[in-house]
Amino acid sequence: MANSPSGDSVTERLIRVLETFTPTRTVQSAADIGRRAGLPPSSAHRIVGELIEAGVLERDDDRRIRIGMRLWELATRSSDALRLRQAALPFMERVQSRVQEHTQLAILEQDEALFLERLSSPRSGANVTRVAGRLPLHASSSGLVLLAYAERSLQDRILAAPLAALSAETITDTEALLRKLAEVRSWGYAMAPGYVEEVSTGVAVPVHDQTGEVAAALSVVLRREDAIEPALRELFSAARDIERTLGGRR
Amino acid sequence: MANSPSGDSVTERLIRVLETFTPTRTVQSAADIGRRAGLPPSSAHRIVGELIEAGVLERDDDRRIRIGMRLWELATRSSDALRLRQAALPFMERVQSRVQEHTQLAILEQDEALFLERLSSPRSGANVTRVAGRLPLHASSSGLVLLAYAERSLQDRILAAPLAALSAETITDTEALLRKLAEVRSWGYAMAPGYVEEVSTGVAVPVHDQTGEVAAALSVVLRREDAIEPALRELFSAARDIERTLGGRR
Repeated sequence: MANSPSGDSVTERLIRVLETFTPTRTVQSAADIGRRAGLPPSSAHRIVGELIEAGVLERDDDRRIRIGMRLWELATRSSDALRLRQAALPFMERVQSRVQEHTQLAILEQDEALFLERLSSPRSGANVTRVAGRLPLHASSSGLVLLAYAERSLQDRILAAPLAALSAETITDTEALLRKLAEVRSWGYAMAPGYVEEVSTGVAVPVHDQTGEVAAALSVVLRREDAIEPALRELFSAARDIERTLGGRR
Repeated sequence: MANSPSGDSVTERLIRVLETFTPTRTVQSAADIGRRAGLPPSSAHRIVGELIEAGVLERDDDRRIRIGMRLWELATRSSDALRLRQAALPFMERVQSRVQEHTQLAILEQDEALFLERLSSPRSGANVTRVAGRLPLHASSSGLVLLAYAERSLQDRILAAPLAALSAETITDTEALLRKLAEVRSWGYAMAPGYVEEVSTGVAVPVHDQTGEVAAALSVVLRREDAIEPALRELFSAARDIERTLGGRR
């Protein structure tokens, strides 16, 4: 696979093209894609043409370009993580119908919490999470669960890096984060009161895979004034049912 | 973007690599990927390495390779079709909880029905549909809805090609399919009794986008002996609510 004069691989260039699409920028011209991906116009034109040919991108009648469904299909049909999501969905619905607040499933992905699913009702409170969106591990209740049970090298990496504040109450101190992770392991769940948004408290529990490893975090986003316990009971019950569906140990 | 000696573009080769992963083959060696994608070992090795570097593929401790989450994330976060899925999900849950059978959302993709979502309960009957799976337009209730309201050129293409039988009752005759499509437009919904599996009847209704075009088909898969009407009422009600959420005309 030939590299460009600048030395980046073709795969990197394709990913850079895809990365120019965001939740708030779903349609672009070919020229804009090339500029945002840092590609010369001729390269951008060729890559976009090939991606359209493959069904990865789509061009509408106004020659504006958007993401097609082919990538989603290829990524989804053979993904173990999305099988987990499918197994979890009925139990997430149960949590959501009883707690009536945002119910979410997240996995660890490239040192962040990646949200595979989010169920909400019109009555649910504030929530920044999106499906296929990410949150930092140290700031979200889901991330804290994933981080607390992660391998040591990942924990060291997160603790060594600056801890960004999403709100005034996000933990940004290394010692405080170490104490928090110990608390998560001791309690078996994570509480993140105001860490992401001042008005909300995230509550998350681990979901184990067949080998007993933590595969995901199941969470709800409550209003700050809500009681935690009813939601926590539903989360633990749903996590056990998901694990049973996956054929897990617990 | 350099083409290979065989003339296929790098994008095509990347897609071929991804296509070697299927719902029943989620883990492969690099050598198997190369063989199944029809790539020389050195090319396969390089492409797989680049895709792992980019997070598109992942290698486990046994050096076996699976699809990573990066593609799903990129494809999902900026997709209009998956925004439709997110808007539809609460109403699909309502249908599923009341009808207690598989509830599905499909869109038109490359001349087939692509299923974006499927909700099921342990009590639901037989169903071949998978999330990110496809069914032929002429055979499934979802496909018949999408085909009945599709542009003329697509209808001509489907009618000109052989109509494969998924079961003994699939419509395989062109004239019969034309009558069926007229029936779908006249009734405003599609029934597919035994077309996909002998024991099941698919029932599907159209979901319109803001411009009034049919954007998706919402369907349930009933047991052959079940009454259609209660499910149909739920489907029409859910489709209207989805359209209202999308800001549609109806």
